Amino acid sequence: MSVLVVGSVALDSIETPFGRAEEVLGGSATYFSAAASHLTTVSMVGVVGEDYPMQKLEALASRGVDMAGVQTARGSSFRWRGRYQHDLNTAHTLETHLGVFSHFKPQIPGQFRRSPFVFLANIDPRLQLSVLAQVERPRLVACDTMNFWIESRRPELLELLGHVDLMTLNDAEARQLTEESNIVKAARWIMDRGPARVIIKKGEHGAFMFTRDTIFFAPAFPLESVFDPTGAGDSFAGGFMGHLARTGDLSDDNLRRAVIYGSTMGSFAVERFSIERLLELDQATIDARVREFQQLVAFDAPMAAVGEPT
Amino acid sequence: MSVLVVGSVALDSIETPFGRAEEVLGGSATYFSAAASHLTTVSMVGVVGEDYPMQKLEALASRGVDMAGVQTARGSSFRWRGRYQHDLNTAHTLETHLGVFSHFKPQIPGQFRRSPFVFLANIDPRLQLSVLAQVERPRLVACDTMNFWIESRRPELLELLGHVDLMTLNDAEARQLTEESNIVKAARWIMDRGPARVIIKKGEHGAFMFTRDTIFFAPAFPLESVFDPTGAGDSFAGGFMGHLARTGDLSDDNLRRAVIYGSTMGSFAVERFSIERLLELDQATIDARVREFQQLVAFDAPMAAVGEPT
Repeated sequence: MSVLVVGSVALDSIETPFGRAEEVLGGSATYFSAAASHLTTVSMVGVVGEDYPMQKLEALASRGVDMAGVQTARGSSFRWRGRYQHDLNTAHTLETHLGVFSHFKPQIPGQFRRSPFVFLANIDPRLQLSVLAQVERPRLVACDTMNFWIESRRPELLELLGHVDLMTLNDAEARQLTEESNIVKAARWIMDRGPARVIIKKGEHGAFMFTRDTIFFAPAFPLESVFDPTGAGDSFAGGFMGHLARTGDLSDDNLRRAVIYGSTMGSFAVERFSIERLLELDQATIDARVREFQQLVAFDAPMAAVGEPT
Repeated sequence: MSVLVVGSVALDSIETPFGRAEEVLGGSATYFSAAASHLTTVSMVGVVGEDYPMQKLEALASRGVDMAGVQTARGSSFRWRGRYQHDLNTAHTLETHLGVFSHFKPQIPGQFRRSPFVFLANIDPRLQLSVLAQVERPRLVACDTMNFWIESRRPELLELLGHVDLMTLNDAEARQLTEESNIVKAARWIMDRGPARVIIKKGEHGAFMFTRDTIFFAPAFPLESVFDPTGAGDSFAGGFMGHLARTGDLSDDNLRRAVIYGSTMGSFAVERFSIERLLELDQATIDARVREFQQLVAFDAPMAAVGEPT
């Protein structure tokens, strides 16, 4: 089955302690699609300006990403300039130029409207709601958000929560949204407002997936060098949703596997600038890292009762 | 088999957002012993002043902790006063009174010298070395340390590394010791100087155990309320070493289980002030949490090759 993603398509300029990149492919829909395209077919909806280097997006199209929903609008493309310092967990925004993104009105092409899996990447909650009005009974809808919308579009974001099955957000955003410092309580607060599942991402510290009755945790893959953290969260979402769409299985066991695919794709994304590393992956490399994840957390619980001290 | 711990025995006064405690049992050897005593017999070495409320330590003795190595010296006991604010990860020291601890010279009683498992809790590396000179061929020696010793006793700490099998320390300490910001590289730096294994503790973000060839990760148990983080690391060490001593099994599989016991005991320690929660535990409660840990990270790796997009 296929997955529909609606989000930003940007040009990123990034400085990290290890180098810099100018006007490379970025945006939530771009990272999501690059990651998910290894697992299933992707329908992408977004907007770019007339100045966008469309030929660079060809790399995604050649991976089977359907770009029929990527509009070209009059004006300049969404650009983000950011810097990471020694602490790679924190992006410092140097410049944001919204360009055509500020007037983005997602139009879901007819052939995308019956997508069984829908990911509403981090855009204005009003637009996320407008997407839901255009799609027909998807099997699973997930949304992401960010601090800006939590602050400026709180009522709309809360309305959206009533219409999604799953929310992904990072720990700082979860605390901001719920005003709960404890993330177990924060997750419950969110589930009380709609989603049956919440994934709280903690960057290099891994991710929790909560349901009413269960908690699953997956670490971030311990890399010796993180090159550029941009897009890790959207790549996580791409791996997660891609696995669900590929398998069509919404059991708890399979959602756990989906989190592992999410962590896997996130761990690849940060090894290079932009979607470079995601584009060059092959199945064997992905499968090998999934197995490494299994090794990373594997232990036999000693099910026998603890004995007497010897 | 039994485990020998050498460390501090203190009186803690603590403020958290949830309450305060005055002059309660604290210190690395105290937390370690309370945790390990659920798994094996513990031999404790430390020093207290004449003003120490020895009757309170009775709770440990009645759990089978052998206190023959706890000296009473002339002077006042080691006292620590600290505060945790909203961010429970960071202790703010308000006052440290070393008292008799400043002249501590660990004397290992004859009956403790053949302990097969030895934990050198966070004390002056010169004293940690002096303990090793008094014990006879233990099967496994582990040490902890802290920022103060990394700064003030670096040569002695590096010498110690050549004589231990395993080091535990937190992520900030690992970065300080090794001057590596990446913890995978930091762990390798430490292993290059002696220990075959390094455990890097990340507080609420879990713990990594490194060997030359393997990495194991265990999350911290996601608690809805962390009451007082004091002693979590020493309780982790107590659970870890306690499991190893109980089983006598130094295989990689069993060391992974030991990390889970460490995380389990750490997660209990933070539920109350001092060692209160550790003292009231029973085996069924411990076993139940170990099983919850298994549920927390369990997933079936899909070993089949990733199929074609459908």
